[in-house]
Amino acid sequence: MTDTELPRTPDYDAWPIDADLDTVSFTPRLVTVRWSDGRISRYHGIWLRENATDDTTINPATRERILDLSTLPAWPEVEGAEIDATGALCVDFAPEDRRLRFHPGWLRAHDYDNVSDPEAPLVPVTTWQGGPEAGPDTLDATGLLDTDAGDDAEEAILAPALESVLGKGLVRLRNLPTEPGSLEAIAWRIGPVRPTNFGQLFDVRAKPDPDSNAYTSIALPPHVDLPTREYHPGLQMLHCLENSVEGGQAVMLDGFAVAEALRDRHPEAWTTLTRVRWCYANTARTTDYVWYEPMIRLDARGKLLEVRIADFLRGPLQTAFEDVEPAYEALMTLQRLLRDPAFAIRFTYAPGDLVIFDNRRLLHARDAFEGASGHRWLQGCYMERDEIRSRYRMIQRARRQRRLTTDA
Amino acid sequence: MTDTELPRTPDYDAWPIDADLDTVSFTPRLVTVRWSDGRISRYHGIWLRENATDDTTINPATRERILDLSTLPAWPEVEGAEIDATGALCVDFAPEDRRLRFHPGWLRAHDYDNVSDPEAPLVPVTTWQGGPEAGPDTLDATGLLDTDAGDDAEEAILAPALESVLGKGLVRLRNLPTEPGSLEAIAWRIGPVRPTNFGQLFDVRAKPDPDSNAYTSIALPPHVDLPTREYHPGLQMLHCLENSVEGGQAVMLDGFAVAEALRDRHPEAWTTLTRVRWCYANTARTTDYVWYEPMIRLDARGKLLEVRIADFLRGPLQTAFEDVEPAYEALMTLQRLLRDPAFAIRFTYAPGDLVIFDNRRLLHARDAFEGASGHRWLQGCYMERDEIRSRYRMIQRARRQRRLTTDA
Repeated sequence: MTDTELPRTPDYDAWPIDADLDTVSFTPRLVTVRWSDGRISRYHGIWLRENATDDTTINPATRERILDLSTLPAWPEVEGAEIDATGALCVDFAPEDRRLRFHPGWLRAHDYDNVSDPEAPLVPVTTWQGGPEAGPDTLDATGLLDTDAGDDAEEAILAPALESVLGKGLVRLRNLPTEPGSLEAIAWRIGPVRPTNFGQLFDVRAKPDPDSNAYTSIALPPHVDLPTREYHPGLQMLHCLENSVEGGQAVMLDGFAVAEALRDRHPEAWTTLTRVRWCYANTARTTDYVWYEPMIRLDARGKLLEVRIADFLRGPLQTAFEDVEPAYEALMTLQRLLRDPAFAIRFTYAPGDLVIFDNRRLLHARDAFEGASGHRWLQGCYMERDEIRSRYRMIQRARRQRRLTTDA
Repeated sequence: MTDTELPRTPDYDAWPIDADLDTVSFTPRLVTVRWSDGRISRYHGIWLRENATDDTTINPATRERILDLSTLPAWPEVEGAEIDATGALCVDFAPEDRRLRFHPGWLRAHDYDNVSDPEAPLVPVTTWQGGPEAGPDTLDATGLLDTDAGDDAEEAILAPALESVLGKGLVRLRNLPTEPGSLEAIAWRIGPVRPTNFGQLFDVRAKPDPDSNAYTSIALPPHVDLPTREYHPGLQMLHCLENSVEGGQAVMLDGFAVAEALRDRHPEAWTTLTRVRWCYANTARTTDYVWYEPMIRLDARGKLLEVRIADFLRGPLQTAFEDVEPAYEALMTLQRLLRDPAFAIRFTYAPGDLVIFDNRRLLHARDAFEGASGHRWLQGCYMERDEIRSRYRMIQRARRQRRLTTDA
């Protein structure tokens, strides 16, 4: 690469140039640029130094960082800054006596001086109510497994599906194959499955000698799966292979909507459930999972991070003596909200349906069914929320790449 | 079951009776018992009601709860309590008019009135220093794969191994097979593997066209794997199949010991690194993982929960403008500590060695090696910390079961 080309970016991503660098000024610690649309952005010298793309900073083969800042002879100081003929920002650093160049599209995309929330979700999160008219976002996925990974036909199905899961925590795909095991190939269109003690895929049907209430025909109250883990799976997929029973309707609730209602209507119960650490336990025949966590968790910025609600997977509460009665009062307040039909959507699985939902946000439940009236067979698996975000970012990257190609 | 036998416990576990129930008294909300060793324990009526073991409370087939407390006619009140001829606690509940019985061994094991820390770790956590004389706890695992799952020979190898991982975050097993892929069978002696975009097992060796610095022969600085995930894997296993190269020594550090040293010596840097949310990013060719988290995380009780340190997997810091320079100052202070040889243990992998370590606590690194000097091939996989705890609890359960059998 010569200075007649734009510098590489520090990753494999594509960064269209929406505004040009117009002017630049600097102090020893700071570079300030003005963009062609008038925006002013400040970048710290130390930040620029660590995010450079030359071969002393980034391994050119893997595009991963090799620089350890603390091995530099001193805090890197800016002793020159200009915009070169390609439109790149060039910065001269002392004491290394090194000139480093920065791609304007990448710089603009990482403008921490002007971004109010760098951690903004990929898709806005919207909570939802249920009721008799409500249902999941539903998409026709005919032919998904016949598409090529990454092609336009796959993207046409996956992009809106991922948007529903990211925004609402739920999507229903229809008209998928009903071959047992096909869920694994479908799941791989997003990412790797997270196996558990229940296997890579698990079969939800009434079984002899069941090791979970899920594997009976009884009703299941609203719950998340595997709250007994330090980190319960972020995504669950349930794929209907057969359904000819009476009953067994699926019920789904937005746990974040229920939590918000609790906060608004019963603030004391909300405070208790964000604080008291319940015991979640699955002391089964051959495994013994236990974890302690509040039922409602907020992230460092006070936003809802996860709910951990599953009455049949709670062990004995082990908390301060004086917290026990308030905890149970708050729990019963929550349980009453969970039975309010205003939160629930209800639907019947048809063979070929696949429901993908956020298992750290949504609660799922089912009605009892009559085992003798027919067959009800779902296959399920788990995945991390990381995978759905990675897949969606790859779609965004492909769109940026197409813009670059179109602009060129 | 009749009242001539002890009641069932609400799980599949075994609960030896270390003290008998001596006397009992009650109020409408509280049952107070005195044990044969003088201990006094109080149990709330609501707590007893939810943790009962009768068929209205627990599904007898799955041993999972079916009771929804909020569907009871009213808050359960205690109207009688006594110790029966079997030594069980019997409690009469209004308004259900139901007598429920509780196993004294189980009650004593869940005595929340007298336990100072119900979440105490299974094995005490001890941080450690390194230095030239230090090395990992090392166990001979000859024949592990020839044992039967759950038998005494397996337990004799696994129990001390799990204790080292739980307490120190690290163990080295020696004399395991060197067949490629045998790691999967070894891992299954503990629990299911967590696959990632790098596969179920991954091969650590110098590769053409590497997608990670790990797959080159360059030195790797101390790091955790996959910090780009919402929840990076709790356990990592590295299994040596071949090692005949010059260099490539393994280096391990106790990230908790480094974090504590930072807290003691550089409290300002500590505070910054527990607060500022760094960007972790692996924007590779076909995947794009991004997550924001502080480098050092404490749990709700202020104890060290995890470290997330990996310079080559950090994306551009996106935080408040005024935090950028303090963040880099704190980072460089940490980087200097990480290079202090007092923290590091160093060892050379021999074929058949398996190192299991806590990937949310330990940092691992390696020296550069000479690819042309021989072969260096490790296979690795990830697992959750939940699995090691579940497996260890099963060993504890088996020990309790043996005590019950011996006592009988």
